[in-house]
Amino acid sequence: MKKADVVVLGGLSGITAGVSCKRHYPEKKVILIRKEDTILIPCGIPYIYGTVGGPGNNVIPDGLLEKNGIELIKGEAVDVDRTNKIVSLADGETIEYDRLVFATGSGPLVPPIPGVDKKNVFSVKKEFDYLSDILEALIKVKDLVIIGGGFIGMEFADECRKGRDINVTVVEALPHCLQMAMDNEFCDEAQVKLEEAGVKILVNEKVEAILGNDSVTGVKLASGNEIKADMVILGIGAVPNTELAKKSGLELGFHNTIKVDRYMQTYNDPNVYACGDCARKVSFFDGKPSAIMLASVAASEARIAGANLFSPIHQNHGAISVFSTVINGRAFGVAGMTERIAKEKGIKVVTGMAEAPDTHPGGMPNSTLTKVKLAFAKDTGTLLGGSISGGKPVGEMVNVLSACIAHKMTADDMVIFQMGTHPALTSSPIVYPIVNAAEEAIVLSKNR
Amino acid sequence: MKKADVVVLGGLSGITAGVSCKRHYPEKKVILIRKEDTILIPCGIPYIYGTVGGPGNNVIPDGLLEKNGIELIKGEAVDVDRTNKIVSLADGETIEYDRLVFATGSGPLVPPIPGVDKKNVFSVKKEFDYLSDILEALIKVKDLVIIGGGFIGMEFADECRKGRDINVTVVEALPHCLQMAMDNEFCDEAQVKLEEAGVKILVNEKVEAILGNDSVTGVKLASGNEIKADMVILGIGAVPNTELAKKSGLELGFHNTIKVDRYMQTYNDPNVYACGDCARKVSFFDGKPSAIMLASVAASEARIAGANLFSPIHQNHGAISVFSTVINGRAFGVAGMTERIAKEKGIKVVTGMAEAPDTHPGGMPNSTLTKVKLAFAKDTGTLLGGSISGGKPVGEMVNVLSACIAHKMTADDMVIFQMGTHPALTSSPIVYPIVNAAEEAIVLSKNR
Repeated sequence: MKKADVVVLGGLSGITAGVSCKRHYPEKKVILIRKEDTILIPCGIPYIYGTVGGPGNNVIPDGLLEKNGIELIKGEAVDVDRTNKIVSLADGETIEYDRLVFATGSGPLVPPIPGVDKKNVFSVKKEFDYLSDILEALIKVKDLVIIGGGFIGMEFADECRKGRDINVTVVEALPHCLQMAMDNEFCDEAQVKLEEAGVKILVNEKVEAILGNDSVTGVKLASGNEIKADMVILGIGAVPNTELAKKSGLELGFHNTIKVDRYMQTYNDPNVYACGDCARKVSFFDGKPSAIMLASVAASEARIAGANLFSPIHQNHGAISVFSTVINGRAFGVAGMTERIAKEKGIKVVTGMAEAPDTHPGGMPNSTLTKVKLAFAKDTGTLLGGSISGGKPVGEMVNVLSACIAHKMTADDMVIFQMGTHPALTSSPIVYPIVNAAEEAIVLSKNR
Repeated sequence: MKKADVVVLGGLSGITAGVSCKRHYPEKKVILIRKEDTILIPCGIPYIYGTVGGPGNNVIPDGLLEKNGIELIKGEAVDVDRTNKIVSLADGETIEYDRLVFATGSGPLVPPIPGVDKKNVFSVKKEFDYLSDILEALIKVKDLVIIGGGFIGMEFADECRKGRDINVTVVEALPHCLQMAMDNEFCDEAQVKLEEAGVKILVNEKVEAILGNDSVTGVKLASGNEIKADMVILGIGAVPNTELAKKSGLELGFHNTIKVDRYMQTYNDPNVYACGDCARKVSFFDGKPSAIMLASVAASEARIAGANLFSPIHQNHGAISVFSTVINGRAFGVAGMTERIAKEKGIKVVTGMAEAPDTHPGGMPNSTLTKVKLAFAKDTGTLLGGSISGGKPVGEMVNVLSACIAHKMTADDMVIFQMGTHPALTSSPIVYPIVNAAEEAIVLSKNR
């Protein structure tokens, strides 16, 4: 029987947990077990169908494991004997561990819509061959319907249109695309950008059935309308891969995720840790369970888990939720709570808005107008969240906000916050929009 | 006699102070007095000579004043009677104030080098006509020597080469260009980039004299070497414009700057405030006087001053010093202390380094390798500063670091820091370099 100090089950978060473990405990033997031959970059999956050109250009090189001295076993873990600390694989191999990490991730949520099993109906599985099949199918179709107008749906729609003369329609059940993620003014902006790319968007429309015999021919909506479709992609969410965890007696919680404490240690076995989409998340803001599934949160949890395996080093203070996307060339990002979510939680909110070009003076090339909205708690002045649209710097601007949220900065703190500026790289210091939005929020708050 | 609630003396910081004042106190009458017809964006000045094409494309539109209901008087303030609260202009006009703000900025430091007054020897004045003369002169010359390899010198060298077949030489007295601003590994990288743009760089060379009769013909170095030059630009620093403040009896401190408290109120007159390059700065890190002069710090101080004029709202906690630049297409940025500066202050330092492309997967277009170095205090783990080189996002990445420094984040805080990531906008979550550099610092620190 093989033996290792640490056995990690899973994909992307597994790599990060393994690497962090080896950085902290270079003397420990770490084995990573996964069934996939190649691991894909999850947030890169939509880009397979446009910008990067194929799944082969979206893989995480296993060199990262080798470089860090982590042994890779390709196989399916089918049983965990926690009493004797042994993992069994489908091929009969057994591996003894001292610490075990569940990083088994998530798979696509496939809703029980009639017809969902027809040919040319796809979900977004993180599997190389399956994603290749989608690419293959896209070559032959004319009418693609994407069910779900969240990030995945919007990115898929944008990428699938690139260089293809096909009709792409997004069907969203809520009044706005991206509504769970952004406030209406940003949802509207993203929707217009996607429509400008030639994508048709239907909101307030529920899918009742997927039509066709063997293969999909259309989508029937609850409103009675029917849309022609020779291909359907489901982008409506993900469910954690926690069957093995459950089978091995680990306690599951919210949405079937593995219950972990702040050290990413499971509730009922001090030798077993979990991280990433399969692990239960709590919100940074109120400690309540959170349905957030983001690669960045998974990576952060994986680092924490890896570091803590033999000594508690880092604590997880809950998911702030920071993400960004690009829709038809315009970047959108959110850190923390939107105004909508804050109000739903019953928080009294003051917002501030500001706009500025992301270079200065106006004559600098490649300038993009950046729009910032910040939401503060009226009672304390604390930053709850912010939304930004603009050019490439948006990705790091939401990380600026993430740091501000992590440290409970108030609008006052943000007005005096020293932002470095440069003509080619940022807005002008006199109109820097994060600071100006904070100043507006203070002024509005005083005048109320 | 004219009357105003607030009289602001000066340029860029004056506009920001005025705008913030009007946001907080819309009922107050604000007059801005300056002698310049147009105000230039200070950090945009080097770009006049290349990217933006002329000083006319680098002005701050006075519409900002109009929009905010601020009256502009073009004239030279020559006297301040603080007892009767009256400002007198060169043309005899007098204006009564309730609050006065000095935002008189800085001018170039002109060293007492023999020959510095010869024709075609320029400093970097923030004056439209003077900067136009530099542009005019550049057309006719063949051999430009720039004295000073700091940011201004490097940016001028880079821009003056653009589209011009002229020899450009930078002369720097220290062993590295940008040495006051960055650690050696980044200085070296910037120097190589500038050399690749065809600029000649001489380090460890002091200028002894500027040669020629009427007009400059060369530069004599202390080493004995002589360089041919038909034009010289001095980029070696700035001095505050505080003659009027001194004349009006305000207390001056470090480097002749106006002494102000945390509210930007002058030490000896509660009705007089100062901000920007003319105001004394202290370091965020130790509260000692600091020679930093940055537009971003000036803008921050101006907001604080403007808000506090009729009620203390914001406090200035000292200059963190955050800046960025672009040298031949590569961006460089620093927030807080470099390793060199921290060591000079006697702090025990642990550093962490990391590199990653700023998109993911590797196949995404427009990817630039980003290099991050973080410096932490060994005793407390607190972030002291960070340096980054890479592409356009560097400008906002140093602002991420600024937020981390402002809140005294430790390496532990930074490892668990949740960074939003996106294929087209940022590094991959598993190699996100700010987090990875922090993790490296922790591991190195443990193993010492």
